Amino acid sequence: MALLFVSTAARLPVWQAMFDKAGIPMIAGEAAVTDPAEVTAIACWIPPADLTRYPNLRVVLSVGAGVDHFPPLPEGVALVRTLAPGIEAMVRDWTLMATLMLHRDMPTYLQQASRGLWQSQPVRLASDRRVGIMGMGRIGGLVASSLTALGFEVAGMSRSGRKRAVPIFPADRLDEFLARTDLLICLLPLTEETRGILGRRTFAALPRGAGLVHAGRGPHLDPEALRDALDAGQLSGAILDVTDPEPLPQDHWMWRDPRIVITPHVAAQTDAAEGAAHAIAVMRALQEGAPLPGQVDRALGY
Amino acid sequence: MALLFVSTAARLPVWQAMFDKAGIPMIAGEAAVTDPAEVTAIACWIPPADLTRYPNLRVVLSVGAGVDHFPPLPEGVALVRTLAPGIEAMVRDWTLMATLMLHRDMPTYLQQASRGLWQSQPVRLASDRRVGIMGMGRIGGLVASSLTALGFEVAGMSRSGRKRAVPIFPADRLDEFLARTDLLICLLPLTEETRGILGRRTFAALPRGAGLVHAGRGPHLDPEALRDALDAGQLSGAILDVTDPEPLPQDHWMWRDPRIVITPHVAAQTDAAEGAAHAIAVMRALQEGAPLPGQVDRALGY
Ligand SMILES: NC(=O)c1ccc[n+]([C@@H]2O[C@H](COP(=O)([O-])OP(=O)(O)OC[C@H]3O[C@@H](n4cnc5c(N)ncnc54)[C@H](OP(=O)(O)O)[C@@H]3O)[C@@H](O)[C@H]2O)c1
Ligand SMILES: NC(=O)c1ccc[n+]([C@@H]2O[C@H](COP(=O)([O-])OP(=O)(O)OC[C@H]3O[C@@H](n4cnc5c(N)ncnc54)[C@H](OP(=O)(O)O)[C@@H]3O)[C@@H](O)[C@H]2O)c1
Repeated sequence: MALLFVSTAARLPVWQAMFDKAGIPMIAGEAAVTDPAEVTAIACWIPPADLTRYPNLRVVLSVGAGVDHFPPLPEGVALVRTLAPGIEAMVRDWTLMATLMLHRDMPTYLQQASRGLWQSQPVRLASDRRVGIMGMGRIGGLVASSLTALGFEVAGMSRSGRKRAVPIFPADRLDEFLARTDLLICLLPLTEETRGILGRRTFAALPRGAGLVHAGRGPHLDPEALRDALDAGQLSGAILDVTDPEPLPQDHWMWRDPRIVITPHVAAQTDAAEGAAHAIAVMRALQEGAPLPGQVDRALGY
Repeated sequence: MALLFVSTAARLPVWQAMFDKAGIPMIAGEAAVTDPAEVTAIACWIPPADLTRYPNLRVVLSVGAGVDHFPPLPEGVALVRTLAPGIEAMVRDWTLMATLMLHRDMPTYLQQASRGLWQSQPVRLASDRRVGIMGMGRIGGLVASSLTALGFEVAGMSRSGRKRAVPIFPADRLDEFLARTDLLICLLPLTEETRGILGRRTFAALPRGAGLVHAGRGPHLDPEALRDALDAGQLSGAILDVTDPEPLPQDHWMWRDPRIVITPHVAAQTDAAEGAAHAIAVMRALQEGAPLPGQVDRALGY
């Protein structure tokens, strides 16, 4: 039983030290594999092309939060995505920042500042603003409680509609959810069902002048629909951490649109120690036959 | 007994209706005063030039949070500043936004975005960041608890050093406070002691690369000291809601410095109903001989 590590070299020393300490064998890189039968788990962002080489492979572990880019895995091989409280807190902080930036008209003030213009916009109380969070998973739940603590009127939308501390709309009541949402936050995983969800239909169902905060995945968003909604005044502004493609090409119109603020997929960065700790927990669960923490439902895609 | 209202006309109908309902006489504007002896309180931002006209004047009520611009008042006339939970929450929200913007390198990302540059900076956990709040009054206390909830390591500084939920440094331990502060927030009142406090001495005592969030008053800050500290890398960025003068002239260098983000004194806006409610509470306290809510200590200047 060993974990094969095929992720960034910079993270390797941290993983190695933590695996040594935990007494779990780890192999650094495919070239170092002497007996493929030893490999029961692979930690990677992009999996090795030929997984059939490892007859005892049981789990492939994504070192990032997303798994939308993973190919189908051989029968009997589980897909696990990293569970990392640090990443979740980072995305929560970025999302809180972006939501407050829209709530407090930062795109307008930034544009005014570029012209040296001192001009106030009406200031609103958080309690006069309805926030809607698409994706009420681990991160969405954190964001909901931070925004609720500030006084925002928060609701969420999820596939199942399962109960959380704020009112939740199941996916089949999307329009109702959107109609009550002044600031829309996307924290969805990218799946066949959610691809393109930030598009014309969604924007049209929001109240006029709504704002968009997007920290999900680039392909959730239809940029042309965003532009049209901004031009029509249906949306007032957007803050995006993810785009399609990434990097966003230097000459893309979104960089130059003053109603849009873009950050280069930095809502979170993986912390090596946190990733290794989760991988160790997965290895232990594998040994004990316990449920794997972070296991992805391949049918649902997240 | 009556309150003389000499503030913005737009707020008048709200005040009038609330005073009528409370059964407290209110006079709208000096021109409407028939018997100056009736006036026991004046609500204003800029007080009337001749207060000796009102022989029974007991209190002057600032409709804003600051009182630094008030002239000396006649013997026996108390100065009261508005107490407004809405204003406090608004400043809290703006300060939280600005602190997160510095924590998450928004000045750098905004500058990169203007060139279409997709480049990530290291992401840090809130728990790796020490925030220091100068001014631990009503607003400072709110900011401290919001930032603590996000995991920041928060400390405060106040004149008295009186206990709060986070560690507090009294004013005479300023250097110690600054040495442990990565992100400095100013929420001080403007007094003779605090004028210019955001200057060379203070910046030099911070750890290298610190950030500044300023929502106090313009004259707290020495802009040349800020520029030198930014040029030297001693400070990495600043977000300012207040400047001196206001409006900041269109050709001022601070508008064009990419390390500085400026908003036009919009951390809060006065809400008419909230202001009137506080004024009514002051009138009642006056009648009952109770302590006046929001009374300013003229010796301390806040
Ligand atoms: N920008 C970044 O740096 C960054 C970093 C980390 C993560 N992310 C993004 O954030 C996403 C969420 O992460 P997480 O850890 O919170 O995920 P999670 O715990 O798996 O939660 C996913 C949530 O999305 C909901 N959902 C899935 N499909 C849906 C559909 N078709 N309609 C409505 N709701 C649907 C789920 O509903 P149920 O509750 O019913 O299952 C769940 O509430 C990631 O997938 C990734 O896209 C971005
Ligand atoms: N940008 C905006 O739109 C906006 C809006 C509202 C307010 N403000 C600013 O925010 C300030 C704070 O408001 P607040 O309601 O929180 O005021 P507050 O309740 O009166 O609190 C003032 C705080 O400053 C401390 N302080 C006073 N002088 C000091 C000195 N020399 N050294 C160190 N600390 C000192 C006080 O110390 P003690 O605790 O020992 O008394 C107290 O903690 C206002 O005065 C105003 O400048 C700005």
